[in-house]
Amino acid sequence: MSFKLLILGNNSAIPAHNRNPTAQLIMLEGEHMLIDCGEGTQLQLARFSQRPQKISSIFISHLHGDHYFGLIALISSLHLYGRKKALHVFAPPLLERIIVLQLEASGTELSFPLHIHNLVSDSLQVILEKPGFTVYSFPLNHGISCYGFLIREKPKPRRIIREKLPENISIPQILQLKEGKDVLDVAGNILCGAEDYTLPPRKSMSYAYCSDTRYDESLIPYVEGVDLLYHEATFGDEHSARASLTHHSTAAQAARIAAKAGVGRLLLGHYSTRYKDPGPLEGEARSIFPASDLSYEGQIIVLEA
Amino acid sequence: MSFKLLILGNNSAIPAHNRNPTAQLIMLEGEHMLIDCGEGTQLQLARFSQRPQKISSIFISHLHGDHYFGLIALISSLHLYGRKKALHVFAPPLLERIIVLQLEASGTELSFPLHIHNLVSDSLQVILEKPGFTVYSFPLNHGISCYGFLIREKPKPRRIIREKLPENISIPQILQLKEGKDVLDVAGNILCGAEDYTLPPRKSMSYAYCSDTRYDESLIPYVEGVDLLYHEATFGDEHSARASLTHHSTAAQAARIAAKAGVGRLLLGHYSTRYKDPGPLEGEARSIFPASDLSYEGQIIVLEA
Repeated sequence: MSFKLLILGNNSAIPAHNRNPTAQLIMLEGEHMLIDCGEGTQLQLARFSQRPQKISSIFISHLHGDHYFGLIALISSLHLYGRKKALHVFAPPLLERIIVLQLEASGTELSFPLHIHNLVSDSLQVILEKPGFTVYSFPLNHGISCYGFLIREKPKPRRIIREKLPENISIPQILQLKEGKDVLDVAGNILCGAEDYTLPPRKSMSYAYCSDTRYDESLIPYVEGVDLLYHEATFGDEHSARASLTHHSTAAQAARIAAKAGVGRLLLGHYSTRYKDPGPLEGEARSIFPASDLSYEGQIIVLEA
Repeated sequence: MSFKLLILGNNSAIPAHNRNPTAQLIMLEGEHMLIDCGEGTQLQLARFSQRPQKISSIFISHLHGDHYFGLIALISSLHLYGRKKALHVFAPPLLERIIVLQLEASGTELSFPLHIHNLVSDSLQVILEKPGFTVYSFPLNHGISCYGFLIREKPKPRRIIREKLPENISIPQILQLKEGKDVLDVAGNILCGAEDYTLPPRKSMSYAYCSDTRYDESLIPYVEGVDLLYHEATFGDEHSARASLTHHSTAAQAARIAAKAGVGRLLLGHYSTRYKDPGPLEGEARSIFPASDLSYEGQIIVLEA
C-alpha cells in the first residue's frame, strides 16, 4: 500500500492569493487521515476529488483558527451525509468543548460516534497504532499548546518473487516467507528458503509535520532521519525578528532543522500572506538544505524509497 | 444612496455544485452589513471584491452551521488585519459563548470592540436604528430559535430641482425644501415653494429575509408589502413532506407567502444539494407568484423604485 500526502492548504493566518489555511490529507494503508482542518477544508477535499467519508482520524495541531475552523463544518457535513463509521479527532483539550457546544447549539445528535482524544504530552507520544503504521505527537514551540505529528510505517514484509514459487505452495507458507522464515518439510529440510524466494522488504517510510513552531532545536530528536519533513516557513530571512516574535519560523530556520535532523527531504508551507509568490523562501531554504521544496495546494507526494 | 443586496451563498446544509452556504451582503446608506455567514463567507467576499473591514453589522438567523460557521473565521481575519472599528453581531444567545470560547482557545484579545446582541423576541423587534433605515428581527418557524430580518428605508427627502434654484439660496433653505417646507422671506411670503422646487421623494424600499423556515402564514404580517422578499425554497413540490419534516419550505410555499403578503418580488434560495440545477424550483414558484426568481451567487440586486 502506498503512503501519500495531499496538500489541501498551506497559507498562514488568513486565506489569500488563492491559498487556503492549513490542511493535509494522509493516505496510508487504506486509511485516510487529516492533519489540521482550516476553514474550507471540505471544499478543498471536494476540489481534489477526495471523499470526506473515508477519513477515519483527524489530527489538530493547535487551536489557532487557521488550523481548525473547518473542522465543525466537516463534522456537520459527515453527519448530514449519514455517516455511521466512528471518527477519531486528536487535539488540544479545549477543542472538545468547542465542538460539543456547537453541536448543542444546533440540536445535533451525530449519526456517528465522535471520539475526541486530548493531546497533552510534553514528549513523543504514540497516539494511534495501526497494523501498518504508528502516529506520534510531540510538542512544538508556538506560544499556545501546539503539537507536531510523526507517522512511521512499521517494518514491511519481504516481497515474494511470484514467478519462482512452486505451484503447490500454500498461503500460510507464503506468509512465512514474507516474514523471512524458510519453508520446511516435515523432516525439517528447507523446501523454499526465504532468501531465495523473496526480495528484501520495501523501506518503511516516515513523515513528520511541524506547524506552527518557532525555530527550536529540541524538535530535532523527534524528526531525526524522517524521509519527509513538513516544516512551517511563514517568513523569509528579512522577517526573522517577526518570526521569533510571533512564534513562527523562517524558511532558512526550517532548512536548518532539516539539515541538523538529517531528513530526506524538506517541504515548506504556512506562507505569510505578504508573499504572493513564496518562491524566494525556497531559495533561502535550499541554500542551507538543498532538498527543500515549496508545497503547493493539490500537490500529491508519494513517500516511497 | 443606493440599497443593494449581493448574494454570497445560497446552498443549504452542505456546500455543493459550486454553491456555498448562506450569506448575503447588504449595502445601504454607506453601511455594509452581512446576513448570515456560512463557512467560506470571507472567501466569497474576496471573490466578489468586497472588503470585509467595511462590514459594520452581522445578522445571524440561527445556529445551524450553514448559517454561521464562517463567522469566527471572519472575525479572526478582521482582527489579524488590525481592525479598530466596532463590529455588531445580532444572533441567538448561544453564539456569544461559541465565539468567546474560540477566542479564548487561541488566546486572542481582539483588536476591535465586538458587541454581540442576543436575539430573543417572539415578535417584530427593532434591532438596529440608523439615520436612513431600520433593521427588525422577527421569529421564523424552524425547530430551533430562528429569526428573519426586515430592512426598511426611512422616508427620504424630496428631491431638489437644482436648475430651478435661485443662486442666493442657502444650505439651510435647501434642507428646508427637502423636508417639503416652503422657504419664506422675513415678512412670511413664499420665496421658493417646496412643491415648485422639488420632486417627490424616491420611494423608501424594504427587504425581508426568511431563511430557514417552514411554510408559516404567521410570517405574512412581518413581510407584508416589502419590495423584495428572500424566502428559502429548499425543496421542490415532490419533496413537500420532507420540507415539513425538516422545517423547510418548497418553492411553491415560498411563492404562496409572497403572494399572500403582496410583496413586489420574490427571490428563492437555500437550495437542497439534491438540485444540481435548481431551475425547476423557479417554475414551480412562478406558477403561483410570477415575480419569482432564483438567486445565484454573485448576483447584485439594486432595490430602487
